[in-house]
Amino acid sequence: MNQPLAIGIDTGGTNTAYGIVNRNGEILIKGTLPTTGHATAGDYIAALKTELLPAIEKVGKENIVGIGIGAPNGSVYTGEIMFAPNLPWRGVIPMVKIIEEEFGLKATLNNDANAAAIGEMMYGAAKGMKDFIVVTLGTGLGSGFVANGHMIYGHDGFAGELGHVIAVRDGRKCNCGRNGCLERYASATGIVITANEWLSERSDATLLRNVDGVLTGRIIQEAAQQGDAFALEIYDYTGKILGQSLADAVAITSPEAIIFFGGLARGGSLIIDPTRKHMEENMLHIYKNKVALLQSTLPDADAAILGASALLW
Amino acid sequence: MNQPLAIGIDTGGTNTAYGIVNRNGEILIKGTLPTTGHATAGDYIAALKTELLPAIEKVGKENIVGIGIGAPNGSVYTGEIMFAPNLPWRGVIPMVKIIEEEFGLKATLNNDANAAAIGEMMYGAAKGMKDFIVVTLGTGLGSGFVANGHMIYGHDGFAGELGHVIAVRDGRKCNCGRNGCLERYASATGIVITANEWLSERSDATLLRNVDGVLTGRIIQEAAQQGDAFALEIYDYTGKILGQSLADAVAITSPEAIIFFGGLARGGSLIIDPTRKHMEENMLHIYKNKVALLQSTLPDADAAILGASALLW
Repeated sequence: MNQPLAIGIDTGGTNTAYGIVNRNGEILIKGTLPTTGHATAGDYIAALKTELLPAIEKVGKENIVGIGIGAPNGSVYTGEIMFAPNLPWRGVIPMVKIIEEEFGLKATLNNDANAAAIGEMMYGAAKGMKDFIVVTLGTGLGSGFVANGHMIYGHDGFAGELGHVIAVRDGRKCNCGRNGCLERYASATGIVITANEWLSERSDATLLRNVDGVLTGRIIQEAAQQGDAFALEIYDYTGKILGQSLADAVAITSPEAIIFFGGLARGGSLIIDPTRKHMEENMLHIYKNKVALLQSTLPDADAAILGASALLW
Repeated sequence: MNQPLAIGIDTGGTNTAYGIVNRNGEILIKGTLPTTGHATAGDYIAALKTELLPAIEKVGKENIVGIGIGAPNGSVYTGEIMFAPNLPWRGVIPMVKIIEEEFGLKATLNNDANAAAIGEMMYGAAKGMKDFIVVTLGTGLGSGFVANGHMIYGHDGFAGELGHVIAVRDGRKCNCGRNGCLERYASATGIVITANEWLSERSDATLLRNVDGVLTGRIIQEAAQQGDAFALEIYDYTGKILGQSLADAVAITSPEAIIFFGGLARGGSLIIDPTRKHMEENMLHIYKNKVALLQSTLPDADAAILGASALLW
């Protein structure tokens, strides 16, 4: 029972997942809570504390080496979440400082997609790879770039914001204040925006016209899986925008593989096949047919939990 | 006289520069020859040999540790130049193999812009930096990305082809067979294409209408330096396309600085100021006002010669 343990927390735009993890990457206890619905980051951390304290007591606080957090716009250098467009709280949040005070444990922060990339490298689809990209297709689009076996953090810790390259010049308004960011097209949010735009612009028949309530990514996925041409075309369009941007990213870091996870990636080949097709069509010849597009082999939020906890070892 | 020396060769699209360099980065002997005008890569290397042999005899072949070559599409892993759209020879050229056979010296190859980045890091504007980009604005647009103090080579050695990200969707035809590549706009070649397009489309007065013979980047630079509005607008447009693409590249590696050299960069603030303006306008807030745009402090081809030679140490 006295093995060293680490807590990994994945703060997503919608939900937060946490786990208590051992050095082998086994998640002993895990759970989730909503990220939204808390007025301040302090309230959110209080809710996280209420959730986590019983679990911490169960494994023994003395066995826990610390808490690793993966969050959008989280800086590994400052321990702060900076102006995250996909989190409910504005401005600069001194995450590590608050967590350390509240829990009385050492804490460390990383960008959520970077945490996922570290998780994939240590325990998942990127094991043994030195040059790869992890892309999270969730509320937004996050990314972690690994080159020469090391995370690319950049001079300020904020490298890897592939969700905010401009995929469509003068395109859709983004939460970041600019227009045409990749994540407004290729994410769980983006695919729903595409569907709603097309439903109002077009008149062709589709299962998506019969939806009660709010249209979600899962509903689009189910329609596509039933062969709905309209839903399949939405995936093709999403894969086109994503594939074009990935072809450009490949020209910068020339990765062996690009690994997807998050809500939209759950569609598997539905999203990966058109993305591959359009990426290959748009790629410089020297990169063609060399970059593997893979779905994460780790269950759901596990990559980010594992990666966040791995920051402690 | 018995200090160890290395030969650095910078194979550019138009000219080749070479130098014999000591460990302190002092270039003892240097010279140039045209890259073009040789029917085969073998003929080119024969011409290079004719040029270099007297210099090698002068310093003593026994003092030379080897030959480092920087060339477009050069792979550090295979020693081959692969399908370089801006060189006169097609297909795969086993550069290291031929050079070693011809000269009887150890040889090593790198992408020309990577060689320049290594030169800047060891002896130039990037001294002490761990995260930066070098952009060569010559016949094409080359780039070398450094993260965590290491060159990003990618899994195959071909990382850093910023000249072939798609800057303008369905834009100008590129030598690589695709359309809209950044180097068709932002390079010594690109700025001339823009000028010629505008001269035929527009009728406003400009010094560029009075040019005898072929319009060159140097003529556009001189016109801009004389305050010619048309020429200044060409620089602004070139800076816009370059700045937009750099804003996207920054979102991937978050560099401390971007260092320019090559023919177009000789314009200094003429090209750097509009590039900075448009890059900042297009940048995600977390990166704003943090990335320095610098002109190389090393004379002309020296960065690439020094970087190519540094591969031997």
